[in-house]
Amino acid sequence: MNLQTHLVKTISGLCLLFTLLVINPAQAQQATWIWYPGDYEIWLANDMQNRRTERGAFFPPFWRMDSHYVLIDFHKEFNLAKPEEVELYAEGQYNVKLDSKMLPGTPTKVTIPAGKHKLNIKVHAQDKVPAIFVKGPTIVSDSTWLVTFEDKEWIDETGKVSGQSGTAWLKAGSWNFNDPNNLPSKFKLATEPWKAAKVTRQPGSILVDFGKETFGFVKLQGLKGKGKVSLYYGESQEEALATETGETLDHLQVDRPQAVDMVLPGSRAFRYVNIQFDNTVNIGDVSMLYEYLPVADRGKFRSSDPELNKIWDVAAYTLHLNTREFFIDGIKRDRWIWSGDAYQSYLMNYYLLFDSPSVTRTLLAQRGKDPVTSHINTIMDYTFYWFLGINDYYQYTGDKSFVKQFYPRMQSLMEFALNRRNKNGMVEGLAGDWVFIDWADGLSKQGEVSFEQLLLCRSLETMALCANIAQDQEGARRYNELAAELKAKLFTTYWDQNKHALVHSRVNGQPTDNVTRYANMFAIFFDYLNAGQKQEVKQHVLLNDKVQKITTPYMRFYELEALCAMGEQDYVLKEMKDYWGGMLKLGATSFWEKYDPNEKGAEHYAMYGRPFGRSLCHAWGASPIYLLGKYYLGVKPTSPAYATYLVEPDLGGLEWMEGSVPTPKGDINIYCSQKQIKVKSGEGTGTLRFQSKNKPSSKGNKITAKGNNTYEMFIEKGKEYVVAYTAK
Amino acid sequence: MNLQTHLVKTISGLCLLFTLLVINPAQAQQATWIWYPGDYEIWLANDMQNRRTERGAFFPPFWRMDSHYVLIDFHKEFNLAKPEEVELYAEGQYNVKLDSKMLPGTPTKVTIPAGKHKLNIKVHAQDKVPAIFVKGPTIVSDSTWLVTFEDKEWIDETGKVSGQSGTAWLKAGSWNFNDPNNLPSKFKLATEPWKAAKVTRQPGSILVDFGKETFGFVKLQGLKGKGKVSLYYGESQEEALATETGETLDHLQVDRPQAVDMVLPGSRAFRYVNIQFDNTVNIGDVSMLYEYLPVADRGKFRSSDPELNKIWDVAAYTLHLNTREFFIDGIKRDRWIWSGDAYQSYLMNYYLLFDSPSVTRTLLAQRGKDPVTSHINTIMDYTFYWFLGINDYYQYTGDKSFVKQFYPRMQSLMEFALNRRNKNGMVEGLAGDWVFIDWADGLSKQGEVSFEQLLLCRSLETMALCANIAQDQEGARRYNELAAELKAKLFTTYWDQNKHALVHSRVNGQPTDNVTRYANMFAIFFDYLNAGQKQEVKQHVLLNDKVQKITTPYMRFYELEALCAMGEQDYVLKEMKDYWGGMLKLGATSFWEKYDPNEKGAEHYAMYGRPFGRSLCHAWGASPIYLLGKYYLGVKPTSPAYATYLVEPDLGGLEWMEGSVPTPKGDINIYCSQKQIKVKSGEGTGTLRFQSKNKPSSKGNKITAKGNNTYEMFIEKGKEYVVAYTAK
Repeated sequence: MNLQTHLVKTISGLCLLFTLLVINPAQAQQATWIWYPGDYEIWLANDMQNRRTERGAFFPPFWRMDSHYVLIDFHKEFNLAKPEEVELYAEGQYNVKLDSKMLPGTPTKVTIPAGKHKLNIKVHAQDKVPAIFVKGPTIVSDSTWLVTFEDKEWIDETGKVSGQSGTAWLKAGSWNFNDPNNLPSKFKLATEPWKAAKVTRQPGSILVDFGKETFGFVKLQGLKGKGKVSLYYGESQEEALATETGETLDHLQVDRPQAVDMVLPGSRAFRYVNIQFDNTVNIGDVSMLYEYLPVADRGKFRSSDPELNKIWDVAAYTLHLNTREFFIDGIKRDRWIWSGDAYQSYLMNYYLLFDSPSVTRTLLAQRGKDPVTSHINTIMDYTFYWFLGINDYYQYTGDKSFVKQFYPRMQSLMEFALNRRNKNGMVEGLAGDWVFIDWADGLSKQGEVSFEQLLLCRSLETMALCANIAQDQEGARRYNELAAELKAKLFTTYWDQNKHALVHSRVNGQPTDNVTRYANMFAIFFDYLNAGQKQEVKQHVLLNDKVQKITTPYMRFYELEALCAMGEQDYVLKEMKDYWGGMLKLGATSFWEKYDPNEKGAEHYAMYGRPFGRSLCHAWGASPIYLLGKYYLGVKPTSPAYATYLVEPDLGGLEWMEGSVPTPKGDINIYCSQKQIKVKSGEGTGTLRFQSKNKPSSKGNKITAKGNNTYEMFIEKGKEYVVAYTAK
Repeated sequence: MNLQTHLVKTISGLCLLFTLLVINPAQAQQATWIWYPGDYEIWLANDMQNRRTERGAFFPPFWRMDSHYVLIDFHKEFNLAKPEEVELYAEGQYNVKLDSKMLPGTPTKVTIPAGKHKLNIKVHAQDKVPAIFVKGPTIVSDSTWLVTFEDKEWIDETGKVSGQSGTAWLKAGSWNFNDPNNLPSKFKLATEPWKAAKVTRQPGSILVDFGKETFGFVKLQGLKGKGKVSLYYGESQEEALATETGETLDHLQVDRPQAVDMVLPGSRAFRYVNIQFDNTVNIGDVSMLYEYLPVADRGKFRSSDPELNKIWDVAAYTLHLNTREFFIDGIKRDRWIWSGDAYQSYLMNYYLLFDSPSVTRTLLAQRGKDPVTSHINTIMDYTFYWFLGINDYYQYTGDKSFVKQFYPRMQSLMEFALNRRNKNGMVEGLAGDWVFIDWADGLSKQGEVSFEQLLLCRSLETMALCANIAQDQEGARRYNELAAELKAKLFTTYWDQNKHALVHSRVNGQPTDNVTRYANMFAIFFDYLNAGQKQEVKQHVLLNDKVQKITTPYMRFYELEALCAMGEQDYVLKEMKDYWGGMLKLGATSFWEKYDPNEKGAEHYAMYGRPFGRSLCHAWGASPIYLLGKYYLGVKPTSPAYATYLVEPDLGGLEWMEGSVPTPKGDINIYCSQKQIKVKSGEGTGTLRFQSKNKPSSKGNKITAKGNNTYEMFIEKGKEYVVAYTAK
């Protein structure tokens, strides 16, 4: 079986799987644990983000962590044909009201009579999120229930309820806790036992190599005796052996007269574990429990280039490792939810997992609650990426409900940002604002940085889009106006005719001479530049080695995206092979936080002034997934939720490629060689666009010539199209 | 020993006690548990307010409950003459930084070198409030430590800390947890065992009478057997016997082969307990654990009228029962923190306990956190009482630190209220606003109610005062201006020349005909009326039986205060004896939520449409404490913290009275008969003002005639003054 037929089989299998998995909202009678929307996400994020340790010390975030509301009222009105008994479960103390009358005690079952009735459940919990699970023949707890943190149901002296509460009710939040015994507060990621690849024993020490970067709980098997055991974790062997300077470790005091298998309580990132122990202690074997979020790959990519396939595989593994309770930055060190990092994970996710709950969990955890006292993660650019993340989320999923529910939180965050503009209507770093942009030597953050204005402008466009969805016409008008004003200012302020580029910043009223890649590359794929300007930027910035080079995969993501958007797939393919291939040649089993080909040996592991400070498994290292899906397989939505979409394959010099791009309700499968394109889609109405040196043909399907060797063909859902053509 | 000498002895004893108890801030080296200010109060209030039950069902509040910040950084800078080792304790996970460098692991001790150093401790806890306790020879955790929920200490790529964080640091909050093992999260009120006064046994039932209203945990002694036990609590015997309609109960399923003493887990309010049990169960004796906040009476009152003395005692007991984790409304039912109720408790507190932590705990719990989404307790008037409570708190205690720390929360609450004004600049009930005023039949809440504008006006004056303390000059100017505008409008809008009063409201632009007591009586003691208007209001409203009578002790408080402020102590004394004496004649052992002398028998127990809905131990029933202290003993501060004060005794027809009024640093003791006044004060510089028919004398002290039979004399701290005079 060649790769191609294997892939087709896999795709067929996946299609069946996803048909089973997709929930039809109209039929949904699946009872699930529900809560105040956003609260569980905040609670779980607090738990996860406070698990970071540095050499055994607790190392929490430096921004505000919010809390769930501790007292929530859940309700729904029903119209029953016949009476039904429902089971009630709650996380926390609770009471139950039927038609606004409180039932005695704490009922675990209640019978709802036939006819119109209203069921309220009010829950209090401080240590966990108030949540309920309700299950009856037709009545179930799901996202159609309404929730509030203040029901304002006061009574007057006669006992009459106010009835004019002015309370805002939201739809309940949920995830996938579909069993009453599967308590949200007890959530754990899945684990599976993994064996070591290589174990090297010496007296009082064991060095274990798990063969590749991994994450989980080390298991000491046959542990016996009394004494000290220390575990030094390493993403590299050098780090595991550097007991004084490695980033993570665990010290145990063991007292086990009988041999036991002990699983370490904290999950760590590592490939190597260096275990040092007293000679009064015996350790049998060492293995681990690999910890992961069970979410299947829906995106696929294979090509004629084995190195590129390896890059795709390692990128996919890197993204999986960083897709956990939330999309995190990297598995060794922070394990925090950084908005700029997560934003890229969202985009990759749309081409690999299409796991929307992971996107919304992460967006909600980042946003937290009002009042806004800081930028997200304290970083100005990261506030703006949050808005961009919602823009993309809506484009890829079409989820209006999310936008409507959280539009008020979008508004208050945007007001925070707008209130920090200077007299020119531009943002610059005030006290407490971290202007990040990128890790780059000597990068100036002073004054009005063009890149930040660009992100604000796009965020304002996002607000206008969401205001329309939330039916806030006045807001839409205002945000559109602010965006248009700022967009005009971008060009009058930063565009330098001589440099053919946007300059980096304006300081003390004077545009600087400095040209950096950041604003310029974003301006391309935001489509803020006209065609001429794009060409100027391509030549004078993107392809100009005199402009400071980007060394993080983080910003390489956008640089390569900009080049792809300019049709430079051939060039980008070489860059990918150089850059990600370069990491592979150094033995990378996951992609790094930063890679500089000029560095040597253990220099690759250093960062933040620490010899092993660098993360060797960082989500932003996985961008080839996104680039290959969007710009080589060439699939992207042209209206929300893939109602319409474009398939514009570009081999970029490959002989052939094939793959699958997930959409909300199905996958789009593509095969493309120099002679043939095959497309089959489970979703929406697509346009296949391609270039051919001669007139292409597709049995019985109409192909329209668009001039300049470009052709288009409509793609209907469910039908397989085969096009014969000759690649340019 | 007559009452008078007994009192003097008691006072001397108390003075000694308080000398020992008073902490001198300059010397304070008392280590205490500290937290983010306001957070412990919110957490403890959530715990307390969610303990309400109604016939066994959990009955939480209907307003938003906030949470503590789950991640807090505590720090302090020290300059040590020599190194010292300090012990560290924390509630939650924590790390320790010395001079911004994180120490490994979780240190329980740290040595601070000599010289200038900075110690940071960062704590995370979700289920309880992050708190620390630090104790060394000179270094201790106290309110001089600084805290924040976002330290914003990001690092750049080289590991350098930002150093320009823009973080707001507050002074740490604390209470009295002065021992490392006395954990704030484990707080419990004190208990002591109380015996029953009378036990009536029948087969399968025991009726216990504890002799008076009380609060605590019932203890079933010698409990044995298997079966059901039900406890029906009653503030009255009728309620305890009304097993179907009483307000509180507990059902137990007992299975005790051996006789045990069982303390019920929930604290309840009761005088009577009706215990019903299966014949398979044996109960030996029944007693209880009385639960209370250990805080001593500093205020005292005795007079020639035994009934008045009884009123004072029962009022004091009523206030004690309702002074718990916080000042609550009543002990049987809500046990919630109602701002209007608490406001009165604050005032009584200044004349009985002078327990400032109870005031600030309650103010902070009520206020919660931003954003403001509702009035306090959802009630418009209750928002305003919160501001008034701070005004009084500052007057009585002079605590500028509290005002400075929480001025931002005052601002945001005031903005909420101001944003709800209508086009006339007046407040009226919008959706979600409960306009309460009083429990009174047919009382209109429609339109622009004069009473609400009056409270808003006083709140704005409070904001102006506090703005000056917080050095917000612009705010002070604005609030003063808004207050002056509104005050002027009060008279142009509501003052009715023909009715000699402020009318109740304006509806649809038309002042109503209705005159009620509320706005008029507040306008007197707010001193908003001129002397002529005061007399008009006194005659045409306060002493006019045609104006709807007040039936709640809640509003009686203000009505009688207004009359006292007009010199009607003789009249008010009779009213007190009628009203509170009336409750005593019905057997009250604590004062009620509502008393209507026209009601008969069990009618007195009904409210809210429920036969035992009324609370028979309600804080607002204890107002004689305040009236007797402020308007009979006649003591009140004339500048913050009793730096200056007035003593203006008024016998109101009594032959003699004597008592003690607490101040921040000492007590003011007064004896007053028709012939003699004795004053001794431990605080400030006072003015004794009194009326005498003939020329008074005081050995060696200068008495100044002020005309109209009024005399004044200065009172210096620590000296006893005896004045011979002849009462008017």
